[in-house]
Amino acid sequence: MSAFFTSRWVTPPEHVREGAEMPAGFRLAGRACGVKSPGSGELDLGAVVSDVAGTVSAARFCDSGVLAAPVVVTRERCDLRALRAVVVNSGNANAATGDAGIAEAVRVQERAAAALGFAPREVAVASTGVIGVLLPGERIAAALPALAASLSETGAADFASAIRTTDALDKHVSLTVTLPSGAVALSAQCKGAGMISPRFATMLCFVQTDAALSAETADLLLGVTVKRSFDRVSVDGQLSTNDTVVLMASGASGVRIEPETEDERRFGAALDALLRQLALRIVADGEGARRIGRVHVRGGGQETVERVARAVGNSPLVKAALFGGDPNWGRIAQAIGAALPGSAPLAFDIAIEGITVARGGAGTAHDAAALAQAVSGGEVLYEIDLPGEGAEAELFFSDLSYDYVKINAEYTT
Amino acid sequence: MSAFFTSRWVTPPEHVREGAEMPAGFRLAGRACGVKSPGSGELDLGAVVSDVAGTVSAARFCDSGVLAAPVVVTRERCDLRALRAVVVNSGNANAATGDAGIAEAVRVQERAAAALGFAPREVAVASTGVIGVLLPGERIAAALPALAASLSETGAADFASAIRTTDALDKHVSLTVTLPSGAVALSAQCKGAGMISPRFATMLCFVQTDAALSAETADLLLGVTVKRSFDRVSVDGQLSTNDTVVLMASGASGVRIEPETEDERRFGAALDALLRQLALRIVADGEGARRIGRVHVRGGGQETVERVARAVGNSPLVKAALFGGDPNWGRIAQAIGAALPGSAPLAFDIAIEGITVARGGAGTAHDAAALAQAVSGGEVLYEIDLPGEGAEAELFFSDLSYDYVKINAEYTT
Repeated sequence: MSAFFTSRWVTPPEHVREGAEMPAGFRLAGRACGVKSPGSGELDLGAVVSDVAGTVSAARFCDSGVLAAPVVVTRERCDLRALRAVVVNSGNANAATGDAGIAEAVRVQERAAAALGFAPREVAVASTGVIGVLLPGERIAAALPALAASLSETGAADFASAIRTTDALDKHVSLTVTLPSGAVALSAQCKGAGMISPRFATMLCFVQTDAALSAETADLLLGVTVKRSFDRVSVDGQLSTNDTVVLMASGASGVRIEPETEDERRFGAALDALLRQLALRIVADGEGARRIGRVHVRGGGQETVERVARAVGNSPLVKAALFGGDPNWGRIAQAIGAALPGSAPLAFDIAIEGITVARGGAGTAHDAAALAQAVSGGEVLYEIDLPGEGAEAELFFSDLSYDYVKINAEYTT
Repeated sequence: MSAFFTSRWVTPPEHVREGAEMPAGFRLAGRACGVKSPGSGELDLGAVVSDVAGTVSAARFCDSGVLAAPVVVTRERCDLRALRAVVVNSGNANAATGDAGIAEAVRVQERAAAALGFAPREVAVASTGVIGVLLPGERIAAALPALAASLSETGAADFASAIRTTDALDKHVSLTVTLPSGAVALSAQCKGAGMISPRFATMLCFVQTDAALSAETADLLLGVTVKRSFDRVSVDGQLSTNDTVVLMASGASGVRIEPETEDERRFGAALDALLRQLALRIVADGEGARRIGRVHVRGGGQETVERVARAVGNSPLVKAALFGGDPNWGRIAQAIGAALPGSAPLAFDIAIEGITVARGGAGTAHDAAALAQAVSGGEVLYEIDLPGEGAEAELFFSDLSYDYVKINAEYTT
């Protein structure tokens, strides 16, 4: 029984083992600097640092029209292929803060570079928290020397705490990945529980390995695995302003992963399982969530199956029914129809946990007691078949709960 | 002080007076037939009938890919320009019920025609309630003779009760409209509280007048006013399978409305105010709603302003903040950015109840106490200015409350 791979929808590869040390070459830290809640001592500032010259990196960001200042600064002022450090604060997103927000993000980047002994272009910055409030950059900068002094190989838990906002579940792990060329370590720290949308749902995720990769391989693997993980989950369909994923590879294990080798394939499979499980943990941690849904749509036309998967996964009616353990498949039918206006009559099939409830666009006799039992678990699978074939899309989504409303009705006040 | 025109966003024309009799020529009824809750005596079957030969009509329906059987039957088997009756049940939507559902809708239509003395093509049918359960057409048909016998000029309240599902607010009214050519009566009965989306948000609305209109004028006026009312509201962004609006004009007042006259202009203004107030009442009655929001977006490009208006009005984060009386304008900024991916940096302005909170894409100093006060009322106005000019879009939306979740988590169970 795995402590990390808890979803039946992610099968960790046989060459992956949990509970490893951090990848060699990395140190992390988490501190309180008073951004989240002044004087509370709550951790709200973290850093990941590689001590190895020649560390390679890759990154992905959201594409919102309202990009947070740290995303702009990291994209425009960093060498994303050669990052040595990431500095992250929670409690303030530094988004919709204009030129002043950019200046504060630059201040944090430059002061962090000085404290850590790197060039500013080697230091990525990330923020999460409330939107529209100017980041207190000087307060953060003042805490950077102490943060630098507290970096350690065992700092992952503190770092993970420092990047949390409304997260309830832990989202960090270290894995050992056994490759033909040797064993490497792979670790990640992630945060995300709300404002999570299929169009890049990360919030923040930082991944480290001591494998040796080229920057091109790192970018390729990160791109593919992000598309299958953070790009496939939705808590509330709300694209964030701050989403950031950074992969750093120190090479300190001495195990080199060459393109198109069994090493690369196995490492990619491990990264894929890691990011998918983290993405599912974000969904499970969807603010107030009780259950996870997985919708899988098959049919003709990629755009069609995508639209249906997202309409179902983002429907507040479907999500509220999932929360209630209510086997109301009519909400699935409604969402399908809404996604494809003008297409009536539409011959769709729906199965919930393998029980077919609609066929050819109409309800079909089924065992209601078995269905009610099937939707009472922690993970519920919805399979939808549309006319045609050759295309498929899936989305993992959280339910809609009283607590989602409570958390989001009272966020700033 | 008007009892019906309660929103500050609808100003009834001076030539409109509330509290009139029903339009001449119409009789209505509401009965219990055991579809909603067998044996409960709850009203769940209603009819509107015109006793005047030559009555004209017009209708609009939703465009879901999953159209309910009564929508299909009414669209395909009725003369929509010359309806004499509408028969409506609540408690069962007869949607996603396949050919069997079509047969049940036809059964109701034909038996109603027989009971009322009309041709089937003169009788529209409509249903609302749970999706995916076959309509018990015979149970409804058996109640039609008693329904026909109970039709009366004072039956509007019973009819309005019979078409309700989760509605908490009354949504029926009779108006007197004074035209240059004489006075006419205009009445409507409406239902809708959930599964309400901007792309035609009616649920069900039935409108009667004793003015004499051509079918073309009726269709034109209904089309324009629906676009400004039911097409501009969202409770949960969820397009229904059953939306139906029917306007019937008996001509029994003897006042004829000719195209492009002051009569037509004034009648159109009255219909406009009526449908907009009904649409706002649907929003106010949004399942569990406490407050209504109105988002008004100006900028260059109609598609851009539409997307932003709908992204803001359908954002669960914005809606939860509205519910909480939380002046968190960062959620507005987030929704704007999500609606326009790849457009960063975006120079948007946001004002809430006339208080500018962001300018040029960044937060701006404002009176926080005044803002908190401004968002504590029953109606909250959000104005968004985007770059460019010449286009604008508005959307009225409900908040997201604990009760929305409760109602929708426990709908069928």
